[in-house]
Amino acid sequence: MVARETRRVTISAIADLAGVSVPTVSRVINGRSDVAPQTRQRVEELLTRHGYRRRPPSMRASSGLVDLVFNDLDSPWAVEIIRGVEDVAHAAGVGTVVSAIHRQTAPAEQWLNGLRGRGTEGVIFVLSMVEAPMRAELRRMDVPVVIVDADGLPPQDAPTVGATNWAGGLRATEYLIGLGHRRIGFIAGPPQLMCSRARMDGYRAALEAAGLVFDDALVRPGDFYHESGFVGGTRLLGLVDPPTAIFASSDQMALGVYEAVRQRGLRVPDDVSVVGFDDLPEVRWSSPPMTTVRQPLAEMGMLAARTVLRLAKGEKVESPRIELATELVVRDSAAAPATG
Amino acid sequence: MVARETRRVTISAIADLAGVSVPTVSRVINGRSDVAPQTRQRVEELLTRHGYRRRPPSMRASSGLVDLVFNDLDSPWAVEIIRGVEDVAHAAGVGTVVSAIHRQTAPAEQWLNGLRGRGTEGVIFVLSMVEAPMRAELRRMDVPVVIVDADGLPPQDAPTVGATNWAGGLRATEYLIGLGHRRIGFIAGPPQLMCSRARMDGYRAALEAAGLVFDDALVRPGDFYHESGFVGGTRLLGLVDPPTAIFASSDQMALGVYEAVRQRGLRVPDDVSVVGFDDLPEVRWSSPPMTTVRQPLAEMGMLAARTVLRLAKGEKVESPRIELATELVVRDSAAAPATG
Repeated sequence: MVARETRRVTISAIADLAGVSVPTVSRVINGRSDVAPQTRQRVEELLTRHGYRRRPPSMRASSGLVDLVFNDLDSPWAVEIIRGVEDVAHAAGVGTVVSAIHRQTAPAEQWLNGLRGRGTEGVIFVLSMVEAPMRAELRRMDVPVVIVDADGLPPQDAPTVGATNWAGGLRATEYLIGLGHRRIGFIAGPPQLMCSRARMDGYRAALEAAGLVFDDALVRPGDFYHESGFVGGTRLLGLVDPPTAIFASSDQMALGVYEAVRQRGLRVPDDVSVVGFDDLPEVRWSSPPMTTVRQPLAEMGMLAARTVLRLAKGEKVESPRIELATELVVRDSAAAPATG
Repeated sequence: MVARETRRVTISAIADLAGVSVPTVSRVINGRSDVAPQTRQRVEELLTRHGYRRRPPSMRASSGLVDLVFNDLDSPWAVEIIRGVEDVAHAAGVGTVVSAIHRQTAPAEQWLNGLRGRGTEGVIFVLSMVEAPMRAELRRMDVPVVIVDADGLPPQDAPTVGATNWAGGLRATEYLIGLGHRRIGFIAGPPQLMCSRARMDGYRAALEAAGLVFDDALVRPGDFYHESGFVGGTRLLGLVDPPTAIFASSDQMALGVYEAVRQRGLRVPDDVSVVGFDDLPEVRWSSPPMTTVRQPLAEMGMLAARTVLRLAKGEKVESPRIELATELVVRDSAAAPATG
């Protein structure tokens, strides 16, 4: 009752208070782009202050579009996520608008303007962090948001879809221990990302469960990119008592370890076993084909798309965070340690 | 004058002839999806027969969207092209709708329905072949089309953006000859694709220019995928007088040759030099980093986006086919042949 009364009050009152016409307020409410920024801001503030309630999402006109937003499209797993989102959206008769927003000078504002003009069922972010002002604006526009979280974000106020990073780190390390390795090197990801910590904690848990010592000397920092894997691998192989296996917590770093092994005149897996994390499509074609922990990126995209389309219909989601299972994919880059 | 008169005549006459209302004819003309397929076909036929002329593209309402259509999103270069298209579209304030249409059961019709509903400035196809009925329908809808042609298509009736495949094949082979190689193996692509032929013709032209014999025994068939490179490489290395270098006409096949070399207990480039074609992002992280011919995929996407946006404004394009330059990217997979 309160909500309905509030609503009835505000729409023309807001126009009076803002000193603009009713159609202008309507344009702001409907998220149209043909309103001056200052006017929009003034009207939005009044709408918020007086508790104006927009129609629920289920009553918005269908735009037939869902937005998929990346920081940048140079991520090696971007195409996997696009594939998953597009698959579900296409089946629902919805088009997938792909954007990369971080390279532009005024990305958020320009992108939001485009969104207002054409509408969207909802937005899927594949980002390390979604900026608060953008999130607030999407909330004002009643646009549902889902976050695909390949990085293991701390909780945000939108549903997220991730993967079981800790279990993946555990499984990879258990596998190497099972092959007979006792000195297992680890190349970490950026420490500020939760997924990095989860993968390393999984590595440590497997060692401890097997009665092996967690040795700081066998852990090298990394940033998930190739170069850091090469540097970390080179350092580990240069130790007086080098590891017989290296678990790199991203595929790109694992490929860097391959190159470090090659440059020392050694071979994978004959001299050094290597396990990666991600299962990017290209590691099937690495030489030797890589044993790695699979993140189900396409499936994460599919689930995100299903979730955002449900939210667009006004449905509720069961859980604010879902983690899909990782699994070890055994190929040819890990073997029993050489005797001697 | 004729055009204007024709136009004036047809719109209500068409409705009479088709036995439908004027709004129904309008809906067909405006490409809306809420018309029964049979009715649409009947009206379209009458519009065509009586020479009804739609408004030129420049007068269509702007949808703020451009469509980028792949056969499937498993192509390793898809993300490069998406990046190029999105870059130009984003700068123009236009959203990029990415679709993959070949996996769906009724792809073309469902996709066209979505397109009618939301509108588009134009469509960029990244496909081996665009189906004729779809092309005809887009023409009826006055939607401009550009084809990104990483395969070297035979000419079609839409502007295409490609790369200089022949020059790339020539340059890679010249480079290996310059390093001192005299027996250079070649792994071909699918013979029905023009780009495969162009790359092989470039290989042959370089050999002949250097006074070397083109030897059928050194040429193996391939399909651009990894497995065929592995098989072709294994065959070539098994020859009584094996080549000292192998030019694979795709990066994935070159990675297959890497694996063939490894499985024979040999090394790249110490024992065998390998050169690829494409410069996919991941070959920078191959071990050793791959020397390859770069196709400027992102730039091809950018040019396609610029072209389709110009066509959407009713501008003309200078040339129906543009080929962007390939270039040799020298990394570490090719060296002088081992002496002896």
